[in-house]
Amino acid sequence: MKGKVFLVGAGPGDPELLTLKAFRALKTADVVLHDELIGPEILALVPKTAQLRSVGKRCGKKSARQEEINALLVQFALLGLKVIRLKGGDPLIFGRAGEEIEALRQAGIEVEIVPGVTAALAAAAATQIPLTHREKASSLVVLTGHHSAAGFSDWPASLSPKATIVVYMPGYDYEHTAQKLIEAGLKKSTPCAVISRATSSQEQVFRTTLEALPRAPQLEAPTLLVAGEVVRFANHDSLRQQGTWPAPEPNLIPLAEFPEQADSQEQSE
Amino acid sequence: MKGKVFLVGAGPGDPELLTLKAFRALKTADVVLHDELIGPEILALVPKTAQLRSVGKRCGKKSARQEEINALLVQFALLGLKVIRLKGGDPLIFGRAGEEIEALRQAGIEVEIVPGVTAALAAAAATQIPLTHREKASSLVVLTGHHSAAGFSDWPASLSPKATIVVYMPGYDYEHTAQKLIEAGLKKSTPCAVISRATSSQEQVFRTTLEALPRAPQLEAPTLLVAGEVVRFANHDSLRQQGTWPAPEPNLIPLAEFPEQADSQEQSE
Repeated sequence: MKGKVFLVGAGPGDPELLTLKAFRALKTADVVLHDELIGPEILALVPKTAQLRSVGKRCGKKSARQEEINALLVQFALLGLKVIRLKGGDPLIFGRAGEEIEALRQAGIEVEIVPGVTAALAAAAATQIPLTHREKASSLVVLTGHHSAAGFSDWPASLSPKATIVVYMPGYDYEHTAQKLIEAGLKKSTPCAVISRATSSQEQVFRTTLEALPRAPQLEAPTLLVAGEVVRFANHDSLRQQGTWPAPEPNLIPLAEFPEQADSQEQSE
Repeated sequence: MKGKVFLVGAGPGDPELLTLKAFRALKTADVVLHDELIGPEILALVPKTAQLRSVGKRCGKKSARQEEINALLVQFALLGLKVIRLKGGDPLIFGRAGEEIEALRQAGIEVEIVPGVTAALAAAAATQIPLTHREKASSLVVLTGHHSAAGFSDWPASLSPKATIVVYMPGYDYEHTAQKLIEAGLKKSTPCAVISRATSSQEQVFRTTLEALPRAPQLEAPTLLVAGEVVRFANHDSLRQQGTWPAPEPNLIPLAEFPEQADSQEQSE
């Protein structure tokens, strides 16, 4: 009997942001093929008896490796195994899941997709930026930076100033990024934030404007860029440390720690 | 001591798509104020001793009710309680969280946001539509239909044919919706799908093109419209039942059922 492949979103990094379905899928996996960026706490959920393999894709080697990954997924499933393809965030957003799904369908292998919390949602939650807002943002546009096939040339020619823009993997060519967004119709004064390692303990946020973005520090990857009027609402401890925002608003209260997370003992209730 | 308010995303409906963090927040809540659309299985997680109150917003009464909700959140938090504001999907996407966050900050109440799987991700997972694709879709645009403040007038004037467009709450004026998308630059032949009650057992999908969208059936709310070249990859049992797609592709294999979900007994492992 053929096995089945589950394309599973691991969420943004914090294991607490796994879905129950993803959590259970990992707990019952025979094989897990995972991206480079999945943290050790999440990988620790995989049973000791299961095969755990990193199929991380590094810059410049993408195309070659994708076919190998597709072949591995098919081979393991043909052995009758429950195969988990674990991707950061959500599998259908910049995860090249389309290619894996096609390969699996061609091989007649059943696929199920378990959605996950994509980085934009996690970064917004961590910084309290409402991605849409009744008055300030009626749409959300999700783009990717350096790592896309065609790169910036694929960006929309026109962006609404009433949209919130989120750029995944923006890289460090902030000048070019800002220029592209301004050319597409955003004001130079549009607030924006670089959010580094959202939901991890090393999370950092730098808030600025598109005009001043080229002078932003190169925060540690993975980062995400959010641009739009809603960024004015951002609230994060590390914002004050940066001290770059002209006079903190009175409502910029510090985030306190979430009450101690339930440990693995409590998880089992 | 002041309490704290957690704005929590309940995900798309299937309780298995709650995050672990949301699950635990519900289990330890003192008060839960929830949207109309949250299902009974999720509400059943709330302790019997907690207050559970629907603050569902219905059409036409929105503005009046939002202030009442804000006031309730503040009042409960001032009593020192752990208050969960539970919203469908993700709290920061079309959830009017911005207004609640502002009200809470003004009252000096601590807020934490727990992101959730937003409807677009769930609908895409259920239909196996990759929202981005290396060749076919380099960006994702999320819009809302009838329920936005300004409605369609707020839609971007220009959309890239290389974008995937997701319309939340598209309503049933398919003709107007299709026309707006075509005016913004999408081809008449762009594939699109209406997805009804994604991740529930009543899930249904109707796939068509923008040109033929006005003749689509009015599937039961909540629905979502996905438009873009990637919709060609859609795969769902109910697609074949509709029989509207010109000759099913050879790779349109039926989705089998996910192995019986762990029951609440197994959940407790």
